[in-house]
Amino acid sequence: MDHLKSLIREVPDFPKPGINFYDITTLLKNPDGLRSTVDALAAEFEGEKIDSVIGVEARGFIFAPALAYHLGAGFVPVRKPRKLPSECAEISYDLEYGQDTLQIHRDAVGDGHRVIIADDLLATGGTARAVVDLVEQLGGTVVGLVFVVELSFLPGREKLTGYDVRSLIKYQS
Amino acid sequence: MDHLKSLIREVPDFPKPGINFYDITTLLKNPDGLRSTVDALAAEFEGEKIDSVIGVEARGFIFAPALAYHLGAGFVPVRKPRKLPSECAEISYDLEYGQDTLQIHRDAVGDGHRVIIADDLLATGGTARAVVDLVEQLGGTVVGLVFVVELSFLPGREKLTGYDVRSLIKYQS
Repeated sequence: MDHLKSLIREVPDFPKPGINFYDITTLLKNPDGLRSTVDALAAEFEGEKIDSVIGVEARGFIFAPALAYHLGAGFVPVRKPRKLPSECAEISYDLEYGQDTLQIHRDAVGDGHRVIIADDLLATGGTARAVVDLVEQLGGTVVGLVFVVELSFLPGREKLTGYDVRSLIKYQS
Repeated sequence: MDHLKSLIREVPDFPKPGINFYDITTLLKNPDGLRSTVDALAAEFEGEKIDSVIGVEARGFIFAPALAYHLGAGFVPVRKPRKLPSECAEISYDLEYGQDTLQIHRDAVGDGHRVIIADDLLATGGTARAVVDLVEQLGGTVVGLVFVVELSFLPGREKLTGYDVRSLIKYQS
């Protein structure tokens, strides 16, 4: 995955001083980078029977539908409140400062549905954990979680103990 | 496209009374619906040389990357202010009430780049027109615009006169 890593741009002090932002837009705009990333995400779960791939607004929408297409699955969006028009399940979870709430359509995941959660970034794991809980609240089974980038110096995996967590590119700092 | 249309859910009075919302989440969660939609979007521009497919946060992110993959192009996001980490071009445009601003990375589209703009919905055309102007500001050429759903009772196409506008599914009311 060194080829993919070389396409990611590091932006110091974004969104605030002291944070090193790993910018995947330089990977996405490169046709071979985009193709290789989607293919590598799909390869992680090749041959598994998957009903749905879930992506969280907004950056999770970039990879989850393409991954769903390649696995022969459907795509299910998780969104901020008041965006989804039909009956929703919801979950609130703690951020560094304050709280966030996410919603999913109740009819989007059924009993025993086999689900993958896909996102661009695994950092603290708070959002991913909230989505796991939402899926299980609806009776779904989380087959695995897959991320393009993992910040392995943050405790994201600890929040996902017992789940099959994959990532294509890891940063140690 | 009657098969795709049958997978779209109509939600009356969302997001406000009197509005009939065409909900594509029921199409997206259906594996065959997702696959057929992406294939049909790609078929519109098959054989064209396309450098980038542009999608606007958040729902435009659902189709544009998958379409880019199928056309052998890159994906470029257009986002709300303060989301993109590097140097941006921006545009403000009028909404029914108030204004909205969108940004794109300056290095995402180069002189003479051939670009497609993809989104789930063509309604009034305000957002699409703003993205066309952003692309041209950076020297890019808009080869076409493609939408899953077009509300043809609204004047979206009038804002895009002179451009190649495609849509898979049309609603007359």
